[in-house]
Amino acid sequence: MSDRPRLKGAWTVKVITLVPDAFPGIPGLSLTGKALDQGLWVLDPIDLRTFGEGRHRNVDDTPAGGGAGMVLRADVMGRAIRFAMRDAPTDRARWPLVYLSPRGRPFDQATARRFAVTEGLTLICGRFEGLDERVIEHFGIEEISLGDFVMTGGEIAAEAVIDATVRLLPGVLGNSASTEEESFSDGLLEHPQYTRPSEWEGRTIPEVLTSGDHAAVARWRREEALRLTRERRPDLIVRREAERG
Amino acid sequence: MSDRPRLKGAWTVKVITLVPDAFPGIPGLSLTGKALDQGLWVLDPIDLRTFGEGRHRNVDDTPAGGGAGMVLRADVMGRAIRFAMRDAPTDRARWPLVYLSPRGRPFDQATARRFAVTEGLTLICGRFEGLDERVIEHFGIEEISLGDFVMTGGEIAAEAVIDATVRLLPGVLGNSASTEEESFSDGLLEHPQYTRPSEWEGRTIPEVLTSGDHAAVARWRREEALRLTRERRPDLIVRREAERG
Repeated sequence: MSDRPRLKGAWTVKVITLVPDAFPGIPGLSLTGKALDQGLWVLDPIDLRTFGEGRHRNVDDTPAGGGAGMVLRADVMGRAIRFAMRDAPTDRARWPLVYLSPRGRPFDQATARRFAVTEGLTLICGRFEGLDERVIEHFGIEEISLGDFVMTGGEIAAEAVIDATVRLLPGVLGNSASTEEESFSDGLLEHPQYTRPSEWEGRTIPEVLTSGDHAAVARWRREEALRLTRERRPDLIVRREAERG
Repeated sequence: MSDRPRLKGAWTVKVITLVPDAFPGIPGLSLTGKALDQGLWVLDPIDLRTFGEGRHRNVDDTPAGGGAGMVLRADVMGRAIRFAMRDAPTDRARWPLVYLSPRGRPFDQATARRFAVTEGLTLICGRFEGLDERVIEHFGIEEISLGDFVMTGGEIAAEAVIDATVRLLPGVLGNSASTEEESFSDGLLEHPQYTRPSEWEGRTIPEVLTSGDHAAVARWRREEALRLTRERRPDLIVRREAERG
């Protein structure tokens, strides 16, 4: 990472992980990767193994009460967290401390927007059976979930959070309009999209889209977004109406 | 990929993407990576650019009806899909064709279990403003979402689906018991975990876990899982009760 420029005040993400080689991964490619190379954001992977116990740098032990798998030790993770947060502001609104776990609150676009206006973020990637509960309580760690499924570790979830957040940072996307129009900006799924060729496999583009009538296009897209959301995600409609009072 | 062994009949995932270098990514590390090296599963990234139009291999064009961003062309994606599916069974239950999109049905553990008993899977990663709708309709593509947030592309979502699915394949996890006990196997969030040291920062492990009373441990874990799920995800309790009739 050290060969990349670091703009003063650039948004910084620290990732506590047992597989630091996994980073930057996909956020290191394409537009987010270009922004990383330009120093618009900074990524610091922190190797949990460094904080392990004894000669073998053990990070985990068997679960109290028995059962399969291994649990990440509170003392080891505690040292890594103190190291990661040593130069971060103590106000968690300015620098959230997040554990990626299937037990957490589901990650969504509102959370990405909240993270994008912080100074930085520390992400903790679990492995095995997860973290000792005491470290979560002691540091008041925010738990965030990528969804109702189980992965080998938190690293892919970390990349998802990084990607969704970084693309909202100023200067990262070339055309900032496209973050506005997309899914979830207004609580709806996105309308269908079409492009050339005008006919393919006997299928044409809906006429309204090639009519040149901008108001009609906007209306059609709005109706399609509503229709798709009603069909596929009625929960989003309910939430949207609740938020509007 | 060609230097890895391919066991006959090994579960295969094909990924249509504009950034084939992103793969295998995180599923290529740790236990899932070891299983990939052993040929227990096979990964085939397919470069969408190869199927592009003209000398510049264009894959996208401006949205019909106007607006920001670019849309992936139906004809280009259609060629990539036909290539990817050329030797796959036509029965989609045996080989699902999936587009990773925020408009899709949320990915969950039940979907991972469904994918884990197929012969393989083709994943389509979007970029920009997504796919021309006609290609989705023409091939009857299943849309799956990682959650209510927007990423630069579908590649991280693809890794999440791959990781969650591959770890369910026979032989991938050393201790198969641990896939059984985890979150969502019974529709609940996982109970808290503890390990050594027995005291840390003045915090001790709940006594029941060190009591040696296995029935009491199981009861405590069950109650904690129910309590956490009720507090954090009442929607899962509702779904669980609905499924039990």
